[in-house]
Amino acid sequence: MLPESHILTFSCPNRPGIVAAVARTLFESGGNIQEAHQYDDVETDNFFARVRCNFTITRGIDRFRESFARVAETQRMRWALRARADRQRVLIIVSRFDHCLADLLYRWRIGELAIDIAGIVSNHPRAAILHQGFADIPFDYLPVTQETRSQQEETIWNIVQSRKVDLVILARYMQILSDGLSVRLAGRAINIHHSFLPGFKGAKPYHQAHARGVKLIGATAHYVTADLDEGPIIEQDVERVSHHDQPDDLIRKGRDIERRVLARAVRLHIDGRVIINGYKTVVFRD
Amino acid sequence: MLPESHILTFSCPNRPGIVAAVARTLFESGGNIQEAHQYDDVETDNFFARVRCNFTITRGIDRFRESFARVAETQRMRWALRARADRQRVLIIVSRFDHCLADLLYRWRIGELAIDIAGIVSNHPRAAILHQGFADIPFDYLPVTQETRSQQEETIWNIVQSRKVDLVILARYMQILSDGLSVRLAGRAINIHHSFLPGFKGAKPYHQAHARGVKLIGATAHYVTADLDEGPIIEQDVERVSHHDQPDDLIRKGRDIERRVLARAVRLHIDGRVIINGYKTVVFRD
Amino acid sequence: MLPESHILTFSCPNRPGIVAAVARTLFESGGNIQEAHQYDDVETDNFFARVRCNFTITRGIDRFRESFARVAETQRMRWALRARADRQRVLIIVSRFDHCLADLLYRWRIGELAIDIAGIVSNHPRAAILHQGFADIPFDYLPVTQETRSQQEETIWNIVQSRKVDLVILARYMQILSDGLSVRLAGRAINIHHSFLPGFKGAKPYHQAHARGVKLIGATAHYVTADLDEGPIIEQDVERVSHHDQPDDLIRKGRDIERRVLARAVRLHIDGRVIINGYKTVVFRD
Amino acid sequence: MLPESHILTFSCPNRPGIVAAVARTLFESGGNIQEAHQYDDVETDNFFARVRCNFTITRGIDRFRESFARVAETQRMRWALRARADRQRVLIIVSRFDHCLADLLYRWRIGELAIDIAGIVSNHPRAAILHQGFADIPFDYLPVTQETRSQQEETIWNIVQSRKVDLVILARYMQILSDGLSVRLAGRAINIHHSFLPGFKGAKPYHQAHARGVKLIGATAHYVTADLDEGPIIEQDVERVSHHDQPDDLIRKGRDIERRVLARAVRLHIDGRVIINGYKTVVFRD
Repeated sequence: MLPESHILTFSCPNRPGIVAAVARTLFESGGNIQEAHQYDDVETDNFFARVRCNFTITRGIDRFRESFARVAETQRMRWALRARADRQRVLIIVSRFDHCLADLLYRWRIGELAIDIAGIVSNHPRAAILHQGFADIPFDYLPVTQETRSQQEETIWNIVQSRKVDLVILARYMQILSDGLSVRLAGRAINIHHSFLPGFKGAKPYHQAHARGVKLIGATAHYVTADLDEGPIIEQDVERVSHHDQPDDLIRKGRDIERRVLARAVRLHIDGRVIINGYKTVVFRD
Repeated sequence: MLPESHILTFSCPNRPGIVAAVARTLFESGGNIQEAHQYDDVETDNFFARVRCNFTITRGIDRFRESFARVAETQRMRWALRARADRQRVLIIVSRFDHCLADLLYRWRIGELAIDIAGIVSNHPRAAILHQGFADIPFDYLPVTQETRSQQEETIWNIVQSRKVDLVILARYMQILSDGLSVRLAGRAINIHHSFLPGFKGAKPYHQAHARGVKLIGATAHYVTADLDEGPIIEQDVERVSHHDQPDDLIRKGRDIERRVLARAVRLHIDGRVIINGYKTVVFRD
Repeated sequence: MLPESHILTFSCPNRPGIVAAVARTLFESGGNIQEAHQYDDVETDNFFARVRCNFTITRGIDRFRESFARVAETQRMRWALRARADRQRVLIIVSRFDHCLADLLYRWRIGELAIDIAGIVSNHPRAAILHQGFADIPFDYLPVTQETRSQQEETIWNIVQSRKVDLVILARYMQILSDGLSVRLAGRAINIHHSFLPGFKGAKPYHQAHARGVKLIGATAHYVTADLDEGPIIEQDVERVSHHDQPDDLIRKGRDIERRVLARAVRLHIDGRVIINGYKTVVFRD
Repeated sequence: MLPESHILTFSCPNRPGIVAAVARTLFESGGNIQEAHQYDDVETDNFFARVRCNFTITRGIDRFRESFARVAETQRMRWALRARADRQRVLIIVSRFDHCLADLLYRWRIGELAIDIAGIVSNHPRAAILHQGFADIPFDYLPVTQETRSQQEETIWNIVQSRKVDLVILARYMQILSDGLSVRLAGRAINIHHSFLPGFKGAKPYHQAHARGVKLIGATAHYVTADLDEGPIIEQDVERVSHHDQPDDLIRKGRDIERRVLARAVRLHIDGRVIINGYKTVVFRD
């Protein structure tokens, strides 16, 4: 049996010797590289890396963590290191449309998404959600109005903290998070959003897309941020539509794209393949 | 050998009996349907059709054209009928970037696009265009400034008329046509345009797309119109990009999408598969 | 409110006047064409059509059905006519892998697939299927061995008949149907199958694909037939894979393609868009 | 201005410390990593890497090359190191169909493919090739029969050697290379091949695909090898087809896929992104 894999990700100002320092530290801890990506962004001169590795000696990972922390401090890194098999704790927030929820739960149930579901939150009552079969998961009905938003978000934040949530997925949550909660969740909240060529502002975007006669509709998964309409993009995809497609057909096709794009983004995130780079992301695809 | 195919396209206000009238007229002229599409747009209650047919009796097409004209008048149709083998006369207008021009010329040369090239117009001199191998095609260098625009467009219009041009292709022509010329060319001028999710206004869109970190870039082929930013869309497509892609890479990938989307749109148009429906198109794909 | 839509599909030997006869019959019954496709296969000289129509007079559909039956007999048509809102009764047969089953049930539950589920049959016991939430659907555990195959298939056939099943979906049923049952279900049983470039024979195809280093994997939905390895193809799609993908990753990606392709094929079928043409299909896409 | 980029690629038996040794050597030569990928194939336990780097000190690359050679020997590496701007010398071999040739030449002419064209070889005379505009490139007409094959291939081999050809592209060369020449060109000859789901053996594959009614057609670019029907796959893609598509349409769509897939494979190869791994490839995508 292979020794347990670990995932190391880091970003830092670029300068010569970073990889040499990391690789030496790894080698001296009995570490073995299984897969690695490094990327230097010439615009910001920041360096990004992801390393999947295992250790051939007992407690190698502990030695490595200790040594690496010193390297990281010297290089002013933002970094994360965890066992690949450690499951992230995920909170899913939904409104009435449950196609993304149902898809995520299915992938989780068959083991495709190696996560723990810490709970489901909705601003609609349980009965409003068509999908069944999650009786075993904590469900919190947290209705929200303009007046109660800050209080409702405080409750969400308490859930995130008390249940040690690593990742929040806005799986078609039709409310805009406040700047405050967005900042608190920075880098660990993923949203899914429809996207069109050209883009449409305002209500009923699928109806607008239909009125414009677009031939492609799409979806974008991105990190939630306070200072942007739409945060750093993780993944996008599109599907072909035609003059036959009425707004309802666009919504139906949109569902398929949304759940596919969101599932891919979540998978990339939990596998440590996405590193935020300002308004953008570095995505080390497999 | 099969009798010659003809393409009939029409649109008109919908009411019962249209197809019956057309099909009876066709039958009485010895016509045989090879492929047909009909579509009723419930929003405008307009009816759209494309029929590919051949005739088993001599001069059947002439009889049909005569009879059909009466049906068309009764039904207030906009219509077109032509032999499929008749080649449309195409004028290609370019600026400095010649990837779409080169692609169209190659497809024409090997017989894939069954058109006649009536000429190439550019606001740059012949020497500025890298692609060679079109010595056999009339080339007009028509520089343009703000002051000379109306005069330059008048020259273009004269070329369109004198050379009996059926279709104008703006194959990366970096000038905006005036409203006047757009109206004159309505329904017979196709433009190719880059497209992004989200969209970007203003200069250097590929640089903006790069700054935003998009994961898909695309292109849109549409009819030129005066009253819209971008006219009725014929065809769109996208390609995947990543954090590795610098603006130059986006431009390179954009070239591939643009030439592919434009070639498909031209092919759909000359095959009579596109009918304009207000701000939109009906595209009867094969 | 719009009058109820009906779907007419037919195929017959091609000869002039078919569309005229159908359209006149439709017109005389107060019918109105909403969408239509016709196609003449030059190789077999057979004619294929699908017409979506509604009727502006009371009992127009009954008049049309009666008149059309005479036309159909004259033209030696194979045909079907039904109200679009009539739900087909579907039997889903699965083995242990339930991704296609879960996907079909979800699409059915939210109303995307307008079908009635007549039952689920499996050669594995209920407990072996991970997906929950179908307590409201009849489930039959019909184990099968080489010796009991004909008896098990007889039971399936009895279910098909007694529950008036219109369509059987083999949603990853890992058994090969006998020629006898295939013939009985001809044209109303859809199977989903992995597909590769190049193809692989024998067991563990995903492992073979991995050993060969393919860069794309795919799936094919087709009608079940007795006399072919794989019957008339309805729909296919592929997804990109890389050297990183181990057999398990291929299987995971394969699940996504399989459920997508099967759902599309089922949707095309129940919408009357697929007509069998010998070893092939005519698919009138929207 | 940035210092010149270099591309290092290597593969070797995996053991701890490889990356540490390479990175230290790089660091000690004043090297800076711009982009890197490493991959350990668990099946063969071989390690693969590609590093793009530049050097901040004068003659750093020379120091690195010297030091790295010792590391490479110790680790029993197969490796290559070259300046990114160094253009590989490419020989294109074609038969009558010139769509891939025309496409490669266009991409080369506009600077998209940073290669030098060492020559074009065909078993058909110059006049048989429709594409014009390569008067500036050496063209060799080398007809071939069963009897003259070994002699013709010897001439090809002489061209490869005398013109210092780095890469041979079989751009729709309709002849099968002998085992002898295949071995000589191992790892530096790329072929393009149509591909279907399912696959078809024998002549006229597009006609077979049409007879089978496939809904997708594709193409595969692969390295030429002696011992395999089709060598290690570099890149594949597909396009959707329908019942409307006659064999000629499949051939036309096939042209688009073939030229796209071949151009991508050539680009990946010259950018050092493809490393052969037995029957497979490791492709480090950007």
